[in-house]
Amino acid sequence: MGAAVVTDLATEIVIPVCAVVGIAFALVQWLLVSRVKLSHSSTANNGLNDYLIEEEEGINDHNVVVKCADIQNAISEGATSFLFTEYQYVGVFMVAFAILIFLFLGSVEGFSTKSQPCVYSKDKMCKSALANAIFSTISFVLGAITSVVSGFLGMKIATYANARTTLEARKGVGKAFITAFRSGAVMGFLLAANGLLVLYISINLFKLYYGDDWEGLFEAITGYGLGGSSMALFGRVGGGIYTKAADVGADLVGKVERNIPEDDPRNPAVIADNVGDNVGDIAGMGSDLFGSYAESSCAALVVASISSFGSNHDFTGMCYPLLISSVGIIVCLITTLFATDFFEIKAVKDIEPALKKQLIISTALMTAGIALVSWLALPSSFTIFNFGVQKVVKNWELFFCVAIGLWAGLVIGFVTEYYTSNAYSPVQDVADSCRTGAATNVIFGLALGYKSVIIPIFAIAVSIFVSFSLAAMYGIAVAALGMLSTIATGLAIDAYGPISDNAGGIAEMAGMSHRIRERTDALDAAGNTTAAIGKGFAIGSAALVSLALFGAFVSRAAISTVDVLTPKVFIGLLVGAMLPYWFSAMTMKSVGSAALKMVEEVRRQFNTIPGILEGLAKPDYATCVKISTDASIKEMIPPGALVMLTPLIVGTFFGVETLSGVLAGALVSGVQIAISASNTGGAWDNAKKYIEAGASEHAKSLGPKGSDPHKAAVIGDTIGDPLKDTSGPSLNILIKLMAVESLVFAPFFAKHGGLLFKIF
Amino acid sequence: MGAAVVTDLATEIVIPVCAVVGIAFALVQWLLVSRVKLSHSSTANNGLNDYLIEEEEGINDHNVVVKCADIQNAISEGATSFLFTEYQYVGVFMVAFAILIFLFLGSVEGFSTKSQPCVYSKDKMCKSALANAIFSTISFVLGAITSVVSGFLGMKIATYANARTTLEARKGVGKAFITAFRSGAVMGFLLAANGLLVLYISINLFKLYYGDDWEGLFEAITGYGLGGSSMALFGRVGGGIYTKAADVGADLVGKVERNIPEDDPRNPAVIADNVGDNVGDIAGMGSDLFGSYAESSCAALVVASISSFGSNHDFTGMCYPLLISSVGIIVCLITTLFATDFFEIKAVKDIEPALKKQLIISTALMTAGIALVSWLALPSSFTIFNFGVQKVVKNWELFFCVAIGLWAGLVIGFVTEYYTSNAYSPVQDVADSCRTGAATNVIFGLALGYKSVIIPIFAIAVSIFVSFSLAAMYGIAVAALGMLSTIATGLAIDAYGPISDNAGGIAEMAGMSHRIRERTDALDAAGNTTAAIGKGFAIGSAALVSLALFGAFVSRAAISTVDVLTPKVFIGLLVGAMLPYWFSAMTMKSVGSAALKMVEEVRRQFNTIPGILEGLAKPDYATCVKISTDASIKEMIPPGALVMLTPLIVGTFFGVETLSGVLAGALVSGVQIAISASNTGGAWDNAKKYIEAGASEHAKSLGPKGSDPHKAAVIGDTIGDPLKDTSGPSLNILIKLMAVESLVFAPFFAKHGGLLFKIF
Repeated sequence: MGAAVVTDLATEIVIPVCAVVGIAFALVQWLLVSRVKLSHSSTANNGLNDYLIEEEEGINDHNVVVKCADIQNAISEGATSFLFTEYQYVGVFMVAFAILIFLFLGSVEGFSTKSQPCVYSKDKMCKSALANAIFSTISFVLGAITSVVSGFLGMKIATYANARTTLEARKGVGKAFITAFRSGAVMGFLLAANGLLVLYISINLFKLYYGDDWEGLFEAITGYGLGGSSMALFGRVGGGIYTKAADVGADLVGKVERNIPEDDPRNPAVIADNVGDNVGDIAGMGSDLFGSYAESSCAALVVASISSFGSNHDFTGMCYPLLISSVGIIVCLITTLFATDFFEIKAVKDIEPALKKQLIISTALMTAGIALVSWLALPSSFTIFNFGVQKVVKNWELFFCVAIGLWAGLVIGFVTEYYTSNAYSPVQDVADSCRTGAATNVIFGLALGYKSVIIPIFAIAVSIFVSFSLAAMYGIAVAALGMLSTIATGLAIDAYGPISDNAGGIAEMAGMSHRIRERTDALDAAGNTTAAIGKGFAIGSAALVSLALFGAFVSRAAISTVDVLTPKVFIGLLVGAMLPYWFSAMTMKSVGSAALKMVEEVRRQFNTIPGILEGLAKPDYATCVKISTDASIKEMIPPGALVMLTPLIVGTFFGVETLSGVLAGALVSGVQIAISASNTGGAWDNAKKYIEAGASEHAKSLGPKGSDPHKAAVIGDTIGDPLKDTSGPSLNILIKLMAVESLVFAPFFAKHGGLLFKIF
Repeated sequence: MGAAVVTDLATEIVIPVCAVVGIAFALVQWLLVSRVKLSHSSTANNGLNDYLIEEEEGINDHNVVVKCADIQNAISEGATSFLFTEYQYVGVFMVAFAILIFLFLGSVEGFSTKSQPCVYSKDKMCKSALANAIFSTISFVLGAITSVVSGFLGMKIATYANARTTLEARKGVGKAFITAFRSGAVMGFLLAANGLLVLYISINLFKLYYGDDWEGLFEAITGYGLGGSSMALFGRVGGGIYTKAADVGADLVGKVERNIPEDDPRNPAVIADNVGDNVGDIAGMGSDLFGSYAESSCAALVVASISSFGSNHDFTGMCYPLLISSVGIIVCLITTLFATDFFEIKAVKDIEPALKKQLIISTALMTAGIALVSWLALPSSFTIFNFGVQKVVKNWELFFCVAIGLWAGLVIGFVTEYYTSNAYSPVQDVADSCRTGAATNVIFGLALGYKSVIIPIFAIAVSIFVSFSLAAMYGIAVAALGMLSTIATGLAIDAYGPISDNAGGIAEMAGMSHRIRERTDALDAAGNTTAAIGKGFAIGSAALVSLALFGAFVSRAAISTVDVLTPKVFIGLLVGAMLPYWFSAMTMKSVGSAALKMVEEVRRQFNTIPGILEGLAKPDYATCVKISTDASIKEMIPPGALVMLTPLIVGTFFGVETLSGVLAGALVSGVQIAISASNTGGAWDNAKKYIEAGASEHAKSLGPKGSDPHKAAVIGDTIGDPLKDTSGPSLNILIKLMAVESLVFAPFFAKHGGLLFKIF
């Protein structure tokens, strides 16, 4: 077998050290961002230092600084108050669901405290089902809390950074870029390190009780993934409805009817719109990727626990997934320096390449990192559980599994960039189709989204095939981890987008010059692309994670085959493939209805508050914030319930075979809609920005703002909003969450499930 | 076992008699339609007879009649010439594909003429693989020709009927309805009876060679389904691109830019638009449903041939699927009389209920018909082949299988009506969302389409579960046949839509009064709903048919399980679920590009031909017809190739397991997109019509034509055009065709497939 080079003690040290380094790095970045002062005296001071080396504009206009600080406060307060409201409602749900988990899992052996023979090693004794119920519930709560903290911290940092980015934009696009990117990095590193640390500590604490029963220990740990994803679901859906109701409502009246610019302070929905970016795109997305990370770790750990790592009690081998994540943090740390310290952004055209370089550098370095971990932490050969049989795997084979996931992520990132950046022909074609109106714009945009699915799906399919062939379901779980190993960088460039978007909004609201707005717009256009890339990663990894979880579920539910040719499985497959449509129908309708309410309110204010359009009277921002808040809290419940209840209902009444079908169907169908929705939306947004920027002869012929093609582009952008920021990105949580929930409840379903078929 | 009541001789007589009755009935209907004279003298005569009993308008204006006749001729010539061009190109492809079939299937046993042991009854000798190759090729060609004839006849009848419907509209809405409906019935009965007759004759002729080798005989017959569906694919895609390029192009310039009404004779694309309705919605749809019918018959026959019917040489039992279709023709005949003779349409509001009654009556009568056939033609119990084992089935169980398919069709029809008719709240909500512009209209429309998937999928799932549980794959095949058993009525109400649409166009072009146009618009609005219902049937039956074909393929390729947990199958599933998106991307982009060309041409004519907008100069219709023709011929090839080549490539290089995954994935994903696309499009079209008609206070508040909400509704309608008439309905052919092609090539794949995996 050839033992691993790294000792268990070293593993116990390396993981928390890497996590702490990640947190420390995040704090350093935060310190650097905080140097941009929002208060009066020090701004002048700071401005003075840089005065001679950078082009500056209005740097000594203290009014602007005060205005920016005010707006930032309003946004931050709005976001904080919404998140608190959201967490209150979700908290109630989480408590109820935690009780449900305890009752369902506890009832498997009738709440008996007696030890029982292990499921996979029949000759050993494992802890009781009641212990599993208790610890699963605890790790569920831990996952949910970590997710809440991740989302909340991300939001706090983003609202801390947005006005600072605006102020830095006065000094040039390079300074602004670095501020936005550093803030993104704070979020990225905090999330990645936090997730790793909490998981690591939980495992060590659970070990105190479980001792040598690793099978039971890591079964209980899967609750962590479920908790993370449940929170992420509500965060994504609630935040997505909030942000897009405000955005669509603000645009429909402000841009289309009243012809005032985006983010104009006269628009009553403008604060709600900017709050939305932070609660939806930042907090929601942070929770989402944290959930993916937690689930792929859990999936890998649970498969490893019933493989030779688990049965031989090889702690280092067992912790291979966590070591990958640890190295990932260090790799991302080095990568970040390339964007912030080693090179400098001098012009608008440097932004997208700089972000692209981040992807390439992190992937290249990480490949070496994976090789290192695979060589040091794994025995040269070991066995992996594969649906009842053990498969012998070599350490270099596992390296390939992780690496192919990582590189598939890069391919998905590049394809997404190609289809959503306005530097390439697809988006330019969409922009061109605006000549003949909104209808052709929508037709071309939908076609673009559908087309953009092809290569990512092949990339995912190849990863699945290779990693499964090499190391069965464990291979897929570590491939997912590979894709997520550079999560800190991914999150940094992803969070950069909404921060830049907000920075632009603040510039407009603070009445800063056209030139500064041009800079923030350029940052934002790159941000649309990076947001799409982030969604691409989230979806790609979600597909791999779900499959790994699905595999773990099947093992744990003691099914040996999931045969499409049995009616139980096939109807599951068919209905599962329908669920993403049902879910999207709900979320899109919610955004539409909430936007209609917002439109009425904005119209009402324009019509009834005298002097509002002349900028003489202040609009009533609070009412618009309330409309978004109420709508999102109310409307997130039905889609959330659909996702959370489906596995429970199907498993309990139809049994594990049908549930397997549902999971597979939702996975293969949801991935496609999620990718196409987010790319279509991103392309429309950037087609509009392409026309507005007018950077080429072609773009100029379509513009300027207010021309007919531009109006058509605005319609496309508005349609894309719920697609790319509400329904699309929620779908990857749908597929992951149903899978992890099935995994957690598998013992119950295996014992008591399929009631309907038992009766008839 | 209890033998069947009906003797083989009776079966041999009943089937062709029913087919001939169907054809005779179609001819009678045609005769009745032809009584409406398009020539001068007899119109006056005809008008005279009815003069006193119906309200009439411009009945004696001979100019109008002449104009209508002229327009009809132009449409008919355009459609004929396009279909001839299309058939030429497709003909070349068909010949090449026929050769491919022969070579692939012949090569299975190296073109040996020696008999070989049967696949399922190893103790018997069956005809050689070469015979299978020859007869499969012949039946492929027969299927293709029947499909061409079906589509062509349908188009001829529709272009014969449209002007006659217009003329009858002068006498009132009831007369016009009957003319349009009768013409639809001509098409419906001709297609159903033709399909049955050709299949019946082929079986009897093939029997002369095959004798007692029924296994080989019915294997060869599956080529009939493949031929039918291949033609249907090109018909649907080519026709769909043709019609929507013209429609979108005409609307974008005429309605949106120049503010002239739909179907205005001043619009140069108007003839192309009307031609398109006939080649796309009529000929394409006719071929499509014929294909479904042929395939479900073939799937049922091939499974029956390896069940007890085949091994006992029970001819009546074997012909159960054909008997169901035969009874279906008689049932539909009676049902038609309810619409044309027993009741009378007196007002606009009677139209939709009358069409709905058709569905209910045919379903109720057919249930009795199925019971009769099941009782008379089946032994009281028999065995059905079920993946290697035989399952005992009782005759009443098979009755349930057929009946549940039939009733699931009715459910799908009603749900489709609910979501696409402007009598109900979903479409009214979409219309209402036009208040805030095109963006909310599109968001609500997409959400409506997604939502409309839910119940049909449950209906299909229940049918699959029940029919599979009762009679394995044979149950599913006969459930599909059950859904298609009322195909003659289905086609009649489906074809009624485009005929009414054309009638409205002719009324507008002939300069008939606003009142007449109102009547044809009302007919057309009902037609949009019936077209959507027709598509619902087509998709629902396609899902069942594909699954039945899939099952037959799996049996023939000698696979015992299709396990989702093997990577070969899973990647197939994932990629298969992606194919509908790839396909839709191609077809939608094709429509978009062709529409842009059309827009340019129409704009050019408006700008360069003096007096065109004043109606003084005649537009150059021919150039627009040419643009549509060229675009559709060129653009139908890539999506066609994608569908036709995928099974060949996957089967040859990746083998039957991966191909199974691809088929299942394409099926479960394609059904959803197809349903949502066609319902979204139908809803947008009718939301627009709802605003235009202004029949309620609510509708009036949104209108009139030319108001902002109406403009937003027109944008939605235009976006929906390619969704509902090009990409959506083509998808059900995609899933059926890939399944039947896999079935035909199964012996080759089983023998030589999976090259890549064999090499590595």
